[in-house]
Amino acid sequence: MKKLIVQKFGGTSVADTEKIKNAAKLAVMEKKNGNDVVVVVSAMGHTTDYLVKMAKELSQSPSGREMDMLLSTGEGVSIALLAMAIQTQGFDAVSYNAMQIGIITENVHSKARIIDIKTDKIKKSLNEGKIVVVAGFQGVTDDGEITTLGRGGSDTSAVSLAAALNAERCDIYTDVEGVYTTDPRVVPNASRLKEISYDEMLELAHAGANVLHPRSVETAKQYNVPMRVRSSFKHENKGTLILGVEKMEIYKPVTGVAEDSSQARIVVCDVPDKPGVAAKIFSKLASENISVDMIIQSYARKISNTNDIAFTVDLGDVAKTSEALESLRNELGYSGDIQVNNDIAKVSIIGAGMIDRPGVASTMFEALANEGVNIKMISTSEIKISCLVEKSDAKKAVKALHDVFELGCDEKADVRGDLPNL
Amino acid sequence: MKKLIVQKFGGTSVADTEKIKNAAKLAVMEKKNGNDVVVVVSAMGHTTDYLVKMAKELSQSPSGREMDMLLSTGEGVSIALLAMAIQTQGFDAVSYNAMQIGIITENVHSKARIIDIKTDKIKKSLNEGKIVVVAGFQGVTDDGEITTLGRGGSDTSAVSLAAALNAERCDIYTDVEGVYTTDPRVVPNASRLKEISYDEMLELAHAGANVLHPRSVETAKQYNVPMRVRSSFKHENKGTLILGVEKMEIYKPVTGVAEDSSQARIVVCDVPDKPGVAAKIFSKLASENISVDMIIQSYARKISNTNDIAFTVDLGDVAKTSEALESLRNELGYSGDIQVNNDIAKVSIIGAGMIDRPGVASTMFEALANEGVNIKMISTSEIKISCLVEKSDAKKAVKALHDVFELGCDEKADVRGDLPNL
Repeated sequence: MKKLIVQKFGGTSVADTEKIKNAAKLAVMEKKNGNDVVVVVSAMGHTTDYLVKMAKELSQSPSGREMDMLLSTGEGVSIALLAMAIQTQGFDAVSYNAMQIGIITENVHSKARIIDIKTDKIKKSLNEGKIVVVAGFQGVTDDGEITTLGRGGSDTSAVSLAAALNAERCDIYTDVEGVYTTDPRVVPNASRLKEISYDEMLELAHAGANVLHPRSVETAKQYNVPMRVRSSFKHENKGTLILGVEKMEIYKPVTGVAEDSSQARIVVCDVPDKPGVAAKIFSKLASENISVDMIIQSYARKISNTNDIAFTVDLGDVAKTSEALESLRNELGYSGDIQVNNDIAKVSIIGAGMIDRPGVASTMFEALANEGVNIKMISTSEIKISCLVEKSDAKKAVKALHDVFELGCDEKADVRGDLPNL
Repeated sequence: MKKLIVQKFGGTSVADTEKIKNAAKLAVMEKKNGNDVVVVVSAMGHTTDYLVKMAKELSQSPSGREMDMLLSTGEGVSIALLAMAIQTQGFDAVSYNAMQIGIITENVHSKARIIDIKTDKIKKSLNEGKIVVVAGFQGVTDDGEITTLGRGGSDTSAVSLAAALNAERCDIYTDVEGVYTTDPRVVPNASRLKEISYDEMLELAHAGANVLHPRSVETAKQYNVPMRVRSSFKHENKGTLILGVEKMEIYKPVTGVAEDSSQARIVVCDVPDKPGVAAKIFSKLASENISVDMIIQSYARKISNTNDIAFTVDLGDVAKTSEALESLRNELGYSGDIQVNNDIAKVSIIGAGMIDRPGVASTMFEALANEGVNIKMISTSEIKISCLVEKSDAKKAVKALHDVFELGCDEKADVRGDLPNL
């Protein structure tokens, strides 16, 4: 039985015809290795921006249905061009859009979820020896309405196709060389991870690392599809393999350090300590479509019988959040300040290996204390510990944590990160 | 029962978002008149050129299938934008590509013919009060392969849809104001025709007038769909109505004068006068895909028992034609010259009214003689007389014929041309 590899090329990897030729070369190389190849492609570079600009010239709020009709043309261009480029290299290729294949989604525009993928057309073309090029990001409803999958949609298309076709692996080609222990711009000796588990990758993504959209990783986890993040332009480098934790050997408690400076801290002071208050606040915010990240509630003060509730939201949601909180003031009977702090950053350590190892949290806090970094809030999950710090302390904090957990690529004992190929 | 109008906007009529707004206004205006409206759209202005350029960067001879995949994205953009523009003007609109509707064609790429059009989606949307925007130029096979219809394809899409939907009329919006008695750049007082028959329009098109592709007119004739050619930008002008001759009142023998300077004359001299010679020559040319227009065979010369065969071909086919003729020389046994004359022009008069009127031909020849124009070849059809003349005489010939048949717009008796709105 032949192995099937699904490859995905993002917009920067097919931004012009030269880059399309390069993507074709990578597809052909995999075919020459004796594998069947399905290639999922995004729209070329700035196509989407150009289409959105024209739509905005015609309408303040274009209908979701017509926006999806419009944006889906972007991948229509890139799939046909990539198929031509593969043919020019002497291999048979055929392109399909989502409607032709039957990538069935819910009937929701601009952020539909995939329900089902028909595989007969793809399998037939693979059996004929063709490299199959598929439009990412788009889908179609049972009714024949065109939909799009929203941010990170092409990654999700690729992983879903890999699951439906029972592929050996889904290779995500992009403009970075893999997943790093932390941002190499902050910590120069950050090392590329050879492997990372789905859960670690999800926590890293949520903690501010922008390599993959969490939805594609969730899908990969759900169907247990191994993913590889690798560079379109330095493809001799094998990138980072993302897979189930059960398949990994774990040598270190911490896999990566992430920083997220896109949040603000809100503190609602002197909230009456009675049941249902927190529920009212957070359901109000949810109804306004405001995502809340860390939440801390202090112990109730005995004398006033009040407490403080602190949480973080995206910087862009601060004004909406303040309004929503003010509107609850009378109903909930809080009289204190609503404090907003925009100058904070969230620093997180992630590692599936921390589950059974005591002392990881204290090592983290100690390392921050040694650098004089004050911790404003703490939250934890099974495989992540996040600390809120002053924004000006963030880089220092990341460096200290990267050091203390020995993530640098000059460490001899590091078996999870090989030398980055810069 | 509501009337249904099909409108078609070509690439220059949707070249940018301002022009798309204008097209939307024309669709809305028709809807406000109480009619149902289906709008067929081509790709925006230079989109096709841009897509072809990228394809050429990737492949010397891109596959027809992938070219059709690529080019069909052009209308995908324009239909969505036009639907948005209509919605912005307060009317409900929905866009469909050929695959969504089911515009079924033969399984041929780049010049497919429409076999069938499913109308249920369009009718349902019309019943919901929507203006329906449809992608022109493209189709889909029974197998779900995307095809395109070739030159003049969007006009053909529009007329075919009008036939399938039993529309009242198919309005072709373009950058000219209608069909003229002759080229207004040659004859300043050329008048716009109010009406013209399908057959006259076909002869005009074949005789060098580039307003409509003959295929769309043939389709309109076949299904008896009235077409109107009119300006996108001067829409108060009603353009030219194209319809069956039985619905027209004919006042003049001649409707229009056309000039075609894109042909060359070939004369094969001293061809043996025996059966089958002409057949061999023209079947050879047909097998080389060379279109032959006028053909004249002289009377056989008694003494040598040979004659001359003259015909016209496109200027671009001259070299191929000479080669083909040389290759037949031995087989057919002709020994004379093969003369090529590139400096000729075909001047034609067209008119359904000439059928029962004797003297039209002699009037034509006399008018040319009065101007000192030498006629090199003559060919006639039911509703057309074409004369081959020196290229340098062509403009003079057109003016003389336009005058003698009283086609100018300052003629009081002219009921078929109203004043052009220049």
